Amino acid sequence: MTTVTHEHVLAAARRIAGHVLRTPVIQISPGLWLKLELLQHAGSFKVRGAFNRILSAGRLPDSGVIAASGGNHGLAVAYAARALGVRAEIYVPEVTSPVKVDGLRALGAHIVQTGAIYSEAADAAAKRAAETGALSVHAYDQAEVVAGQGTTGLELVEQVGAASTGAPDPAQGPALDTVLVAVGGGGFAAGITLGTATPGSGSGPKIVAVEPERIPTLNAALQAGEPVQVEVGGVGADALGASKIGGLAFEVLSGPRVESVLVTDEAIVSARRTLWERHRLAAEHAGAAAYAALLSGAYRPEPGERVAVVVCGSNTDPATLTTS
Amino acid sequence: MTTVTHEHVLAAARRIAGHVLRTPVIQISPGLWLKLELLQHAGSFKVRGAFNRILSAGRLPDSGVIAASGGNHGLAVAYAARALGVRAEIYVPEVTSPVKVDGLRALGAHIVQTGAIYSEAADAAAKRAAETGALSVHAYDQAEVVAGQGTTGLELVEQVGAASTGAPDPAQGPALDTVLVAVGGGGFAAGITLGTATPGSGSGPKIVAVEPERIPTLNAALQAGEPVQVEVGGVGADALGASKIGGLAFEVLSGPRVESVLVTDEAIVSARRTLWERHRLAAEHAGAAAYAALLSGAYRPEPGERVAVVVCGSNTDPATLTTS
Ligand SMILES: Cc1ncc(COP(=O)(O)O)c(C=O)c1O
Ligand SMILES: Cc1ncc(COP(=O)(O)O)c(C=O)c1O
Repeated sequence: MTTVTHEHVLAAARRIAGHVLRTPVIQISPGLWLKLELLQHAGSFKVRGAFNRILSAGRLPDSGVIAASGGNHGLAVAYAARALGVRAEIYVPEVTSPVKVDGLRALGAHIVQTGAIYSEAADAAAKRAAETGALSVHAYDQAEVVAGQGTTGLELVEQVGAASTGAPDPAQGPALDTVLVAVGGGGFAAGITLGTATPGSGSGPKIVAVEPERIPTLNAALQAGEPVQVEVGGVGADALGASKIGGLAFEVLSGPRVESVLVTDEAIVSARRTLWERHRLAAEHAGAAAYAALLSGAYRPEPGERVAVVVCGSNTDPATLTTS
Repeated sequence: MTTVTHEHVLAAARRIAGHVLRTPVIQISPGLWLKLELLQHAGSFKVRGAFNRILSAGRLPDSGVIAASGGNHGLAVAYAARALGVRAEIYVPEVTSPVKVDGLRALGAHIVQTGAIYSEAADAAAKRAAETGALSVHAYDQAEVVAGQGTTGLELVEQVGAASTGAPDPAQGPALDTVLVAVGGGGFAAGITLGTATPGSGSGPKIVAVEPERIPTLNAALQAGEPVQVEVGGVGADALGASKIGGLAFEVLSGPRVESVLVTDEAIVSARRTLWERHRLAAEHAGAAAYAALLSGAYRPEPGERVAVVVCGSNTDPATLTTS
C-alpha cells in the first residue's frame, strides 16, 4: 500500500470539481487516444494538484499560499489562489524571463525574484513559509498534489470507456491497456497510475513513464533502487527539470504496472511539430514528450493495444511551433 | 420543408463516420460550451462536407474530384481525396500565397494556379470539370456539403446532452438553448441548424449566425429578402469571404430559429487572442468570429441560457496568435 491511494484521488476529484476543466479526449486513430490536458486552466495539469492542496488545507492564514517555480507550477498556484481568493507568493530565481514574471503577475501573484538558481529560490521560499505560516504547495512531492494530478487519470478511464463502442463490458477487460505520460518530479505519472487503477485491486492499465534522455530522474532511480540526483538538460528542462524523482512518486512508480522509457530531444521536437501540424495542438516540449515515445518507436504497442497519450502542457510561445 | 433536411444530416453522419474527427466539446463556464471543431482534420469543419459529397457520389471517374479554393475548402477536399485514394485537382487564383499552395501540394493535390481573382479560378475549374467529368465539390452551396457540415450540430447536441448532469430528461427541454456559428457562404450554419433540429419537429436551439460587419452576406440577404451580392473585406475575408449567401443556406437560415448578428473586426481579433490566452486554442480569425459575438456583447444570452459556441478553424500562422 502506497502513501497516496486511489481513494485519495477520488476525494481529490470531488474536491476540485468545478475548479478545473474536465479536459477532452480525442481518438486520433483506432485504439489511440490523446488526453488534451494542455487545454487545462493555466496551460497544464498543475492546477489539479494546486487546487487539491489548497482546498484540503481548511482555513488559511492571511499569508495565504507560497510556492517556488518560474514555470507551470508557479502559474498553477497563482491561478488557483486567485480563483479561491487567497494570497499567493511565488518565489522565482533571478534569471526567470520577464515574460514569465509578467504572466505570474497578471494572475495577481506577489513575485519574489531571488537566488541565482531554482534551489536557492526554493530555499528562500521555505524559509519565508516558516516565518509567515503560509501554506506551501510543492511542485510534486506532496500527497495532495499527487492525488490532484491523478484526477487526470480518473477522467481518462471514464472518457475512453464511454467512447468505446457499446456499454462497457467488464468481461472484456478495461477499455484502455496503456497510458503514456511525461515524468519530471513524478507527481503527475504517480497520480495517473493511482487514478487509473482498478478500485479494490492492484491492477490497471500499464503506465509508460516517459522522460527525456537528458533528465532521467525515474530511470536512474529505478536502476539505483532509490531516488538519486541526475543532471538536467535539453529541451524539456523548463518543465521536466526536477533533478531527483519525488519520494512519494517513487513509491508508486517503482511498482509493477510502470515501465520507464527514455526519448531523445529530437524525438520531442518532432512530436511537438506533429501535434501542431496534424492535430492543431500547441504543446510545449514537456507536453509532447509522451507522444514522442510513441512516434519515435521508443515505446511500441502490440497490435490491438489500446493506448492513451497525455498531452500535458501548452505554456509555450506559439511562434516557435513551426520553427523549432 | 427545406431542400436539405435533418435526415440528410443523419445520413451524412453515417457516411463520414471514421473519416472525420468527433471533435470534443469543453465546458468553460456554467452554461457555456465550446465545440472544438478547429481540431478537425485539415484544420476546419470543411472535411465533413467534402467527405459527404465524395462518398455520396458512388464510383468516380479517373479525373477524380475538383474544387476551387486556396483556403480551408481546398485543404479539406485535398485531404478527403487523399484519404479516399481519389485524384484531386484544386484551382486557386494566381495570388494565392506559396505557403497555401505548398500545403495543398503536401496533401497530394494537383494545383492549377489561374485567374487574377477567386471567381476566375472558379470559372476555370467549372470549365475543366465539364471537360473531364470530375466531381466538383462546392464550398457551401451543394446539398451533400450542407448535410456534411451539419454533422457538427448532431455531435454538439449529443455531447452537451451527455455532459449535462444526470440522464437527459425530455421533460426538461433540450440541453442547449443557443448555438453561435460563423457564416461565410452559409453552408456551415445551415447544416448546424438542420443538425441540431429536434427530429420530427421544426424546433431546436436558436442559431445565432455571426458575420463580420464587413462581410454581411446573410444579414444583407435577410434585409433584401433574397441572396444579394455584398462587398467583402476585413480580417475574416480569407475564410468568410463568400460575396453572396448560398441558395440552399438561405432557405434554412431565413427560418424562424435563426438570428443574424454582426461583429466588428476588432471584436474578432480580440476573441482570437482570448481563445489563445485563456483556452490555448489556436483559432484563425473566422474560427473566432462566433465567440466574438459573445465576448463583445453583440449577442447577449439571458440569465441561465445554455449556449454553445463553435470554434471552427485553425488554419493560421501560430506566430500571429500573440501579435495580431
Ligand atoms: C507540462 C508538464 N509536463 C510534465 C511535467 C512533469 O510533472 P511531474 O513533475 O509531476 O513529473 C510538468 C511539471 O512541471 C509539466 O509542467
Ligand atoms: C474556419 C471557417 N469558418 C467558417 C466558414 C464559413 O463557412 P460557410 O461558407 O459554410 O458559411 C469557413 C468557410 O470557409 C471557414 O473556413
